[in-house]
Amino acid sequence: MRVRKKNWTVNEFENNELILQNPDSKGRWNDIFKNNNPLRIEIGCGKGNFITESARLNPAVNFVAIEREWSVIVTGARKIRELKEAGENINNILFLATDATNIDNFFAEDEVSLIYLNFSDPWPNRKKWVKRRLTYRSFLSIYDKLLTKDGEIHFKTDNTQLFEFSLNEFSGQGWGLKNISLDLHSSNFEGNIMTEYEMKFSAKGMSIYRLEAYKR
Amino acid sequence: MRVRKKNWTVNEFENNELILQNPDSKGRWNDIFKNNNPLRIEIGCGKGNFITESARLNPAVNFVAIEREWSVIVTGARKIRELKEAGENINNILFLATDATNIDNFFAEDEVSLIYLNFSDPWPNRKKWVKRRLTYRSFLSIYDKLLTKDGEIHFKTDNTQLFEFSLNEFSGQGWGLKNISLDLHSSNFEGNIMTEYEMKFSAKGMSIYRLEAYKR
Repeated sequence: MRVRKKNWTVNEFENNELILQNPDSKGRWNDIFKNNNPLRIEIGCGKGNFITESARLNPAVNFVAIEREWSVIVTGARKIRELKEAGENINNILFLATDATNIDNFFAEDEVSLIYLNFSDPWPNRKKWVKRRLTYRSFLSIYDKLLTKDGEIHFKTDNTQLFEFSLNEFSGQGWGLKNISLDLHSSNFEGNIMTEYEMKFSAKGMSIYRLEAYKR
Repeated sequence: MRVRKKNWTVNEFENNELILQNPDSKGRWNDIFKNNNPLRIEIGCGKGNFITESARLNPAVNFVAIEREWSVIVTGARKIRELKEAGENINNILFLATDATNIDNFFAEDEVSLIYLNFSDPWPNRKKWVKRRLTYRSFLSIYDKLLTKDGEIHFKTDNTQLFEFSLNEFSGQGWGLKNISLDLHSSNFEGNIMTEYEMKFSAKGMSIYRLEAYKR
């Protein structure tokens, strides 16, 4: 049973028009979406709840959901297909199956207006591992390149060490910070869209941290 | 008894060579300390434990402990006198009895190398009150003026809302941030000097927040 299910998912992964694998997309996202709308990406979209809701609320924005776990991407893409089958006109979201380290192969300089990082893997707080954190300085320098002049990064996590690390990395690399929240769900922040993970953890009463970073 | 005690404290307050009231000190701190050492100030020093320890550890730095509660200042100054009477050669600390809003009457531009803000009053999280917080933008602009080019502010608090507010104020006003800690006593930070308040609260297992801000 396990193998059959897996094969079925592989098939769905490989033959889904919403899931892009190794696309020739760099500098071409407006062609791909067939409009001139701004582009937002989520790195590590998981099952896609956050970016799907964001896409529904912002029909005049294009969204690319990036995830390296192909079995997870399939679940996200399936949700979009179901919404479409239910009659919803949702044409502004695509999935890209890749690792964060490769994103500059798929996006050109100044092509992205907003990057979402939601509940990224915190990795252990040791020198060897922190380089893999998606807010490590080498990633920030890639984001810096891909983002438009007014581009922003919106980052959420429940992990104290990762948030502390990220505050230091962003500020140390010269980014401006705003709307920093040390307890998002008790704050005045409006319009928060929850990820699957966030729903689970905030239901347990855990604090969620959030910040917005911008290029100075 | 209460009145007698109070009178005695008033007397000690008014006749203590370590406690300055309305001094003609602006731009003259090197004359007052009779050396050219750098100057650090703590705004809201309470009973002075933090700044006294800092002064003992840094004999080549001048320290001014600022506090508006005169009865509290007396306790701090008494401690220094006792240390001196016990034979300690501690000549680098003075107390200044004033409110934070008046500090630019007593310090000149570029005269201060480091400002300590420890467990400042958090004030309620309402628009009306936040202006009184010592990390509100109007205070930051005074600090900006008084600090040397490489000057820094070191800020500690146990109050989540105040820390969140301060991160946003500092970053929003263009200050750089470093060594941000969301749980100081579990961090790698070395050489932390505790205030009376900090000892009490960290003993209860509460997190202490800390940051260092610098002019960009």
